[in-house]
Amino acid sequence: MTPSRPVRRPSAPQQRWQARREGDLGGDQVEGRRAVLELLVAKRRHTRRVVLADAQESSPQLDAIEEAARRARVPVAVVSRARLDREARTEGNQGVYALCDPVAVTPLEALCEGGTAPFLLVCDGVTDPRNLGALLRSAECAGVSGVVLPTHRAARLTPAVTKTAAGAIEHLDFCAVGGIPSALATLSKRGVRTVGLAPESKRSLYDLDLADTAVALVIGGEERGLGRLVRTRCDDVVSIPQLGAIESLNAAVAGAVACFEVARQRRARRHR
Amino acid sequence: MTPSRPVRRPSAPQQRWQARREGDLGGDQVEGRRAVLELLVAKRRHTRRVVLADAQESSPQLDAIEEAARRARVPVAVVSRARLDREARTEGNQGVYALCDPVAVTPLEALCEGGTAPFLLVCDGVTDPRNLGALLRSAECAGVSGVVLPTHRAARLTPAVTKTAAGAIEHLDFCAVGGIPSALATLSKRGVRTVGLAPESKRSLYDLDLADTAVALVIGGEERGLGRLVRTRCDDVVSIPQLGAIESLNAAVAGAVACFEVARQRRARRHR
Repeated sequence: MTPSRPVRRPSAPQQRWQARREGDLGGDQVEGRRAVLELLVAKRRHTRRVVLADAQESSPQLDAIEEAARRARVPVAVVSRARLDREARTEGNQGVYALCDPVAVTPLEALCEGGTAPFLLVCDGVTDPRNLGALLRSAECAGVSGVVLPTHRAARLTPAVTKTAAGAIEHLDFCAVGGIPSALATLSKRGVRTVGLAPESKRSLYDLDLADTAVALVIGGEERGLGRLVRTRCDDVVSIPQLGAIESLNAAVAGAVACFEVARQRRARRHR
Repeated sequence: MTPSRPVRRPSAPQQRWQARREGDLGGDQVEGRRAVLELLVAKRRHTRRVVLADAQESSPQLDAIEEAARRARVPVAVVSRARLDREARTEGNQGVYALCDPVAVTPLEALCEGGTAPFLLVCDGVTDPRNLGALLRSAECAGVSGVVLPTHRAARLTPAVTKTAAGAIEHLDFCAVGGIPSALATLSKRGVRTVGLAPESKRSLYDLDLADTAVALVIGGEERGLGRLVRTRCDDVVSIPQLGAIESLNAAVAGAVACFEVARQRRARRHR
């Protein structure tokens, strides 16, 4: 018998670090009807509670939420609209939010695996929650399977992000990395072609052949775009040709257009 | 000499109709830095006044606004932030708004003319101001020159639309029509191919050849999509193939992806 030893308790700083690491990406409060419904239906993480505002006009989506919660044995609380608005963190909560486990974190190497050529999105400092949410929603629709987010200098998966993403979060794998440049090096080493979007690049996205390769699209922040080191680490840096006068495509829209260009090329290859 | 006759004054309902007709599309309050700067630089309509919040951190964009106003001899008023926030209609006003003439209305026939093949956008009941603004911004970036809006069942060019459009409104021609179906008939008659976007269509946008033709993309509202009659009047009704699980691309993003697909095809033809 080994002698009984006192359980080693982590020191205070380590505890904090672990706590931050575990809850790194957030996502534990999901708001909006579509987002809550996808959370309950996808069942990828445990939902502790669904909270609904009372006296709402009946709707098929609310019925679906109640039914999905019943099946998953998730308690549903009905509270006044005023209280729900106090507890919710977004204005567009549509009278419903859910409390659940934070989004699980997947190792970077695991994102690169999978039957078909992986299609990843790397966000280098997208700080506006609505932009990040919109980008995740569009990316999921275009077939992106994994998302790389930096642990610093970026929006976490806040209630505003979950709301705007409209459930996309439940169908994406997330990886949190300390630095985007070293993540890009890892991706390249694993055969994933890293393609950065930069409006000032002279090279067109449309001149790349992305139909047959594993690809990671790298999207920069709203203000500063791609970081200097990130840019040098990308295999290609391209832009979406602008034909108008204002030349200021929103970062999330640019990301969506690029994601759907990859999807278009892959589809065209299959139909060849 | 003809006998003097009393000037015929329009009856009250007619007056109201004229007032509504003249200011039909709105756009007379422009908010946000980029939008105000484009208003002053494009000079397509008269600006009466620029209002700035005092004690803002200096920025190149604010300097550019003051310089452009000085050149165009537009008075600049500096008010407290609290007062500006009261007078502005959007939260994201960035400490500046401008009062100007409403957006001019162009006849539908004039939108169909122009040197190269016209590229138009038809909005069939996009009611969310942010969606409409984002759609106009993306469309302008993709080379759309003219926009058809219905006078009913749609967002007008409110301050929220001008803010989100980030100046795109100053570079687009707008037409206001009583009904979208008859506008589509007029467009078809003039050789403009009308392409409706409907998520439930089995036909793919990517199977259309839109490189050499005048084209009008028809985008439906967020809730109800394309109207029944609108759909039957479109030359083609197509969807953007969805590869994810949520299959719910935002209306403005779908419009952006479609606009850039037209731009891509036109560019590919030029480079052939």
